[in-house]
Amino acid sequence: MTRIIECVPNFSEGRDLTTLQTLVDLASSIAGVALLDWSADESHNRSVFTLAGDPEAVVTAAFDLCQQASRLIDLNQHQGEHPRMGATDVIPLIPVRDVSIDECVAMSKALAKRIADELEIPVFLYESSATSPGRRNLADIRRGQFEGLAEKLTDATWTPDYGGPKPHPTAGVTAVGARGPLIAFNVNLDTDRLDVAKAIARAVRGSSGGFAACKAMAVTLDQGLVQVSMNMVDYVKTPLYRVFETIRFEAARWGVRILSSEVVGLCPSQALVDSASYYLQIADFDFHRQVLEQHFI
Amino acid sequence: MTRIIECVPNFSEGRDLTTLQTLVDLASSIAGVALLDWSADESHNRSVFTLAGDPEAVVTAAFDLCQQASRLIDLNQHQGEHPRMGATDVIPLIPVRDVSIDECVAMSKALAKRIADELEIPVFLYESSATSPGRRNLADIRRGQFEGLAEKLTDATWTPDYGGPKPHPTAGVTAVGARGPLIAFNVNLDTDRLDVAKAIARAVRGSSGGFAACKAMAVTLDQGLVQVSMNMVDYVKTPLYRVFETIRFEAARWGVRILSSEVVGLCPSQALVDSASYYLQIADFDFHRQVLEQHFI
Repeated sequence: MTRIIECVPNFSEGRDLTTLQTLVDLASSIAGVALLDWSADESHNRSVFTLAGDPEAVVTAAFDLCQQASRLIDLNQHQGEHPRMGATDVIPLIPVRDVSIDECVAMSKALAKRIADELEIPVFLYESSATSPGRRNLADIRRGQFEGLAEKLTDATWTPDYGGPKPHPTAGVTAVGARGPLIAFNVNLDTDRLDVAKAIARAVRGSSGGFAACKAMAVTLDQGLVQVSMNMVDYVKTPLYRVFETIRFEAARWGVRILSSEVVGLCPSQALVDSASYYLQIADFDFHRQVLEQHFI
Repeated sequence: MTRIIECVPNFSEGRDLTTLQTLVDLASSIAGVALLDWSADESHNRSVFTLAGDPEAVVTAAFDLCQQASRLIDLNQHQGEHPRMGATDVIPLIPVRDVSIDECVAMSKALAKRIADELEIPVFLYESSATSPGRRNLADIRRGQFEGLAEKLTDATWTPDYGGPKPHPTAGVTAVGARGPLIAFNVNLDTDRLDVAKAIARAVRGSSGGFAACKAMAVTLDQGLVQVSMNMVDYVKTPLYRVFETIRFEAARWGVRILSSEVVGLCPSQALVDSASYYLQIADFDFHRQVLEQHFI
């Protein structure tokens, strides 16, 4: 069985095509690593790469990309809508096959140490790698952004896990951590009422009383529709169909229907197979034994 | 990308454990081939093996198993409920990854020729490999069974595609052919009325006006329930959810509900992902790009 991890580094550059091409070329050139997907958002001024392959090779690729990004991106010049704190903003490591989350935590710590030692970029460990509960959530680490880092790091609560005490002058700080696979799942509603989407987002997300492994926000789309935009952070504990059916019955309160949904980027097949099993009422389906492709990965 | 085919040979032995163990040991011993599953049915006196792996290795394994079965199984001594015509009754070859159905047809012909030449067992090509429309359907080839073969083969309509003109004295004849993946999908109804299950089976199966790629029959289960037992022979053309929802609304005519369903044996993930996409209303889902595991097969 081939061991596989996924890595989804986020870089604070979504506009300069020369910089992006350099990073894409680098990501594509490393033996044992496949660049499965990448996308850049101009208004966010941010790019997201999806790498996968042999664990050691993927971690090496993540370091090399972080090094190259620190040479090419100067956060003092950076503007964009998405909150950010580093040239390489965040590096999540995700177990895919025959690798445990604990092994990914160990790899994230080795990677974090190398980034701090060799690149002089302070690193915070987050999610499953976090050294305290207050550091699990990326949004808390990132609060204050690049501009607020110098002051934030003087607070003992925010001493970096590796490196520091000062942020890198142009590359800021980076968050590194192991986490489970995350599914970007958006549900579009047949209305332009943002208040409806906001109420539904509140109903389904864990932080306001909804499903523990669901993060949700309301967004207005260009087409005069609204969307409940979600990150499903544990599709086994909180399956897609359960959130989808909840959105359906919450929307019905306002006479609103679900128009469509979308899965953005990659998704483990089990998340969708589990939902098919629910709707088709399949009893005792054994994903690892009965799904043909699972025997060939 | 590793090329993969699946092969599901059926043998006319479901009772003698010594014979079955010999076949299982043989199937497990061939490099490049995995024995994913096997099951034997005592009342049918029949066994089904699921092999997969490198195309050439799988075809070699199929030949070796057919040879061993012809040594161990004498159809003159065979009794069982399931219709049969050969020691190895049927050998379907199924494309899984990076192999076309046409390539499987070519492989099926080479395998059929070898079985006829070296084992002196006449072979009929069936399904996508069939040399005439009347030979596509296995049930037509098998009609008359082992006992009727000597006479059937004297009819010019039933000259074997390879070998003959007489059946092998103990191993009969074998059908070999390429086909798409088949999903055994059963839906259990909350009633003991076999007439209801029969009416629903007629409504959904292609041969009586239902869905083209669905074969269906009604079965009484031990628990005092009835079942619509199906073979879904093209899950892209006739998706699982469409048949399931049809069974739901047909059953409602009699006030009957669907209790549960089951997928027997292996199933390509796409069949379930397609159904999840329907129920979750996911727009424009690209199976090959967006399903994570597809990048590692």
